[in-house]
Parts: sequence; structure tokens; C-alpha cells
Amino acid sequence: MDFWFEFASTYSYPAAMRVEELAAQRGIKISWRPLLLGPIFAEYGWQDSPFNLFPSKGRYMWRDLERICQDQGIAFCRPSEFPRNGLLAARVACRFADDPWLPSFVRAVYRSNFEKDLDISTSATVAHCIASAGEDPATVIKEAQSTESKDMLRAQTEEASRLGIFGAPSFVVGTELFWGNDRLENALNWAAEHHG
Amino acid sequence: MDFWFEFASTYSYPAAMRVEELAAQRGIKISWRPLLLGPIFAEYGWQDSPFNLFPSKGRYMWRDLERICQDQGIAFCRPSEFPRNGLLAARVACRFADDPWLPSFVRAVYRSNFEKDLDISTSATVAHCIASAGEDPATVIKEAQSTESKDMLRAQTEEASRLGIFGAPSFVVGTELFWGNDRLENALNWAAEHHG
Repeated sequence: MDFWFEFASTYSYPAAMRVEELAAQRGIKISWRPLLLGPIFAEYGWQDSPFNLFPSKGRYMWRDLERICQDQGIAFCRPSEFPRNGLLAARVACRFADDPWLPSFVRAVYRSNFEKDLDISTSATVAHCIASAGEDPATVIKEAQSTESKDMLRAQTEEASRLGIFGAPSFVVGTELFWGNDRLENALNWAAEHHG
Repeated sequence: MDFWFEFASTYSYPAAMRVEELAAQRGIKISWRPLLLGPIFAEYGWQDSPFNLFPSKGRYMWRDLERICQDQGIAFCRPSEFPRNGLLAARVACRFADDPWLPSFVRAVYRSNFEKDLDISTSATVAHCIASAGEDPATVIKEAQSTESKDMLRAQTEEASRLGIFGAPSFVVGTELFWGNDRLENALNWAAEHHG
């Protein structure tokens, strides 16, 4: 199953915290696929998160996310800034998607933003997350900032758009698209039934 | 629990088909509260359904709804027109919200639109739904078209907006808002735990 996520995305947080364990329980392999929602939202004419553009929707989302995290035993602290720019973290996640330390790094970035209220746009925070996953920050960040890595993330975001992805988290199993943290179990069940 | 719904709304369909039985299982009373999404979407600058305005989202929704209905054993046929105007049906549902035949009428309207592909904007279809719920169509429609009934639905839609409702279905329990067919069980569980 392809797990598409954006580091700024609120509902991607509980999905990212849960996906590896739930997939392992069903014997399903996860491909970690970061994308940037900015270019996708720009196609809709949105220059900001829909949760900022549509205040009722935003107020609801924060309360809903709080309830979800409470239900699922996930620590949550509403970030003092939203959305935060996850570009550098996404370049790292895209370039090192297949490395065994990647899931730990992804969770560390999400926890920085949504549990610890840290600014994930800075290389200091990203470096700390890389170190917590057991890698050397300077080496990883240098590689993630290469032209090849930048192009890779751009191409991956374009691929998401071609696949019909319009938000995050999204899950793709064969030709089936599932959108939202709510659909994580449905997507995994689909993968287990149809691609087991 | 207040169940807010719009007859044109796709995800309101499975919610409307399920809500009465699920609420009864938990001993929870439902208030049936139709609203019009048109005026609410207009505040966002949308003159059409977001599922038409944002094609990727629309394509996804139709497939997602099909999967949901299949999972939940609800008949579904994608309507040949979308969205259909549910104004008359909403006036009926608003005016007769507390009548015992109302839930049957609501389900008949949803099935007309999303199972039988009938035009629910016509008084012929609405009349048929009223008759199927055991009432006299002419009497009910006349009353639903009165100035008082029209004002009642307008005021109820304004109330929805004040409550922070931005889409349908929505469920309100005390001060808690839940949005989407996905949240029906959460809302009922909340009602059972906090207002039992």
C-alpha cells in the first residue's frame, strides 16, 4: 500500500503514527510517499490551507483531531503556527523513502509539529529528527537538498496529482484511492483482500 | 442528538438510512434537522457542489460512496444529475420534523435520489414519498409551501451556520459537532456517554 502524506497535514499525523503497526498486523508492506499539498491546492485557487480559508471547517478540524488523538492514545498539542512548511522534511522522506530508519524519522517530524509544537520548517528541527532516527543529519540533509532530490519530490507530487490525490493522508492500493485518516483501516483491509 | 442533513448531499444518504436504527440500539432520540447547503456554500464563494467544483474530489467521492454503500448493504445507483434540488422535500421535513412518519419520508426521498435516480426536485416525486410514508401528499405539500414553513427552513439553515455547520451530514450533541457519515457512530457514542 502506498501511504501518501504531507508533513503540514493535520489528519496525516494520526495516520502516520498508526500506519506501520496496523500494516504489519496484516502483513502489508507500506511505501512511504511524501507529497506537497501546496501545488495541489494551488490548482483549486487556494493559496493557504482550506482549514484557514474556511474558518468553520478549521475550527471543526482542530476539535475533531483532538478527539481522534484522545481516542487513539496519540499525544496532541495544537501547533501555534499552521500550516508549517514541511518542504525540507519531505525532501528527506522522498530521497530516503526505502531506508529502514525512514518511518522513525517521519514520526519524529509529525511529533515535533503536532505534539511538541516545534517549527519543522527549520533545518535544526529536521536535523534533530534525523538524529533521533539514528542517522547523521549533515549527510542526510546535504543529500536531500541536491538537485536530484528536489526533482524527485516535485515529480512525486505531480504523480500524486495524476493519481487523483487531492488531500492527505491518502492511501493507494492498486487502482483504489482512499482519502483520510478515517480510511486507513479500509485501505489496509482492501489491500489484504485484493492484493494479499 | 440532532441529525442535520441536506437531501442533495451524497454522504447524508448512508447516514439517513442508518441513523434511526443505530440510535434506537443505544436508546438515543434523534431530532431530524434538514438544512440547505446552498446558502452555506455561497458563503465560501461556491455556486455549485464542491464535488463538481473540484473534479478529483468528486471522482473520489462517487467511488468512496459506492464502496460505503456496498459495505453497509445500502442500494446505490449514481444519480444522472447532481446535485438535485431538495428544497421542497426539505420544507416538508422541516415542517413535519416531529411527526412519526417523518423518518420514513426522509429515507424515501434519499432512496428516490440515490437508489432510483428520480428527480427529487419535482412535486410528483416528493408527493410519492409522502404517500409512501402514509400521509396525504396534497395536504402536506400545501402546508410545506406556506410562508411559515418557508421561513422555518430558512431560520433553521441560519441556525446551522451559527452552530458552525459547514457540510452534511452533521451531528450535534450538546456543544459537540461531528461531521460526515463516518462520524455517525462517534456522535452516537458521545451522546450515550455524555448525555445518557
